[in-house]
Amino acid sequence: MSIQERLAARGLALPNPPQPLGSYTAVSQAGDLLFISGQLPLADGKVVWQGQVGRDLTLEQGKRAAELAALNVLAQIHQHLGGFERLDHIVRLEGHVTSAEGWLQQPAVVDGASDLFADVLGEKAGHARAAYSHFQQPANAAVILVVIAQIRAR
Amino acid sequence: MSIQERLAARGLALPNPPQPLGSYTAVSQAGDLLFISGQLPLADGKVVWQGQVGRDLTLEQGKRAAELAALNVLAQIHQHLGGFERLDHIVRLEGHVTSAEGWLQQPAVVDGASDLFADVLGEKAGHARAAYSHFQQPANAAVILVVIAQIRAR
Amino acid sequence: MSIQERLAARGLALPNPPQPLGSYTAVSQAGDLLFISGQLPLADGKVVWQGQVGRDLTLEQGKRAAELAALNVLAQIHQHLGGFERLDHIVRLEGHVTSAEGWLQQPAVVDGASDLFADVLGEKAGHARAAYSHFQQPANAAVILVVIAQIRAR
Repeated sequence: MSIQERLAARGLALPNPPQPLGSYTAVSQAGDLLFISGQLPLADGKVVWQGQVGRDLTLEQGKRAAELAALNVLAQIHQHLGGFERLDHIVRLEGHVTSAEGWLQQPAVVDGASDLFADVLGEKAGHARAAYSHFQQPANAAVILVVIAQIRAR
Repeated sequence: MSIQERLAARGLALPNPPQPLGSYTAVSQAGDLLFISGQLPLADGKVVWQGQVGRDLTLEQGKRAAELAALNVLAQIHQHLGGFERLDHIVRLEGHVTSAEGWLQQPAVVDGASDLFADVLGEKAGHARAAYSHFQQPANAAVILVVIAQIRAR
Repeated sequence: MSIQERLAARGLALPNPPQPLGSYTAVSQAGDLLFISGQLPLADGKVVWQGQVGRDLTLEQGKRAAELAALNVLAQIHQHLGGFERLDHIVRLEGHVTSAEGWLQQPAVVDGASDLFADVLGEKAGHARAAYSHFQQPANAAVILVVIAQIRAR
């Protein structure tokens, strides 16, 4: 199965990748590394999941926020490379989770992204990871993901 | 116009790049990537812009803080490379903004850095970006920028 | 002296590197760069240093937390490379410090990691650095370190 078939099997599809809203680019390439701007849980131009996980959102909703932000990461990679063939692997995933005070299950939230990568990317999914807690984030997004990926030579 | 002429046209000049205050380096090179230590809105050894944007500082002051920190980023690159000729492009900009509770215009603050890069670096400016909110940061700096840049072979 | 002899001279030994608790890897390699998942002040599977530095922990304890997390970074590199011979240098160290409100000595805490690297890695220690303040972090860890390292060709 292709990556997009695996997404469809989960009832998911690649969104249109969000465009940057300032003097920067969605994806910046340096050699065979892609640096992807922070991706939000955005669908149809709207931040679907907002607020603090553990207060405004449940853990399960937080995971869905991470999954949706991860879909946008995949959409950016797909647009930059014109497909997934040249993706070697996800190198690093930073998961920034808007969290209630005293709520410390950020890694479980970020699993929503890591598990999506594992399911649909297979051996291209392997990434190092860090999970962070914030009390607030831009656009009131519940999760922001910052990703580095490696590509293969043409 | 050279990059320094473009800075001068904006009434700006490269500061002396701040020296690290511990067992680390201002710039660490790995292949053709430069990793630059967090840069503060520092001039003449003093953190000019302190406190939370949205409480102690206005958005406009926050942007100037980001611009000043970006000048220090450029100063570090200039010192490391002995000029800007070998700079290929700014790869990634992390903008960490000290923010008031409930204040979420961090991306607009980081625009102060992105816009400076766009204005003076031209096609070398293109970078991926992420904006973060913190309630406090070291030295009470209003903005800290963490940058990766790519250089060209000699 | 070897790196492990230098550790022993400080009364330290490499711990068993912690295994990831999800769909990610402890170390992700891209070319000659190693991206290491966030490392905690963990010993024998337990987060030894918890809470906010400046409230629950002193600066000195915070430094020890950073040193212990740095030991885990070294353990991950050692396991990935089967030794330290192929380590070129530590490229970047992000030091995330759980901090009391109003407490801003995060760089002094992260010195606990930078100083360990300088002492035991010698010329392989040189890294760019950024220090961050958080009010809380996963597992209530006092310090989390996120490291990129460069390796040499075989």
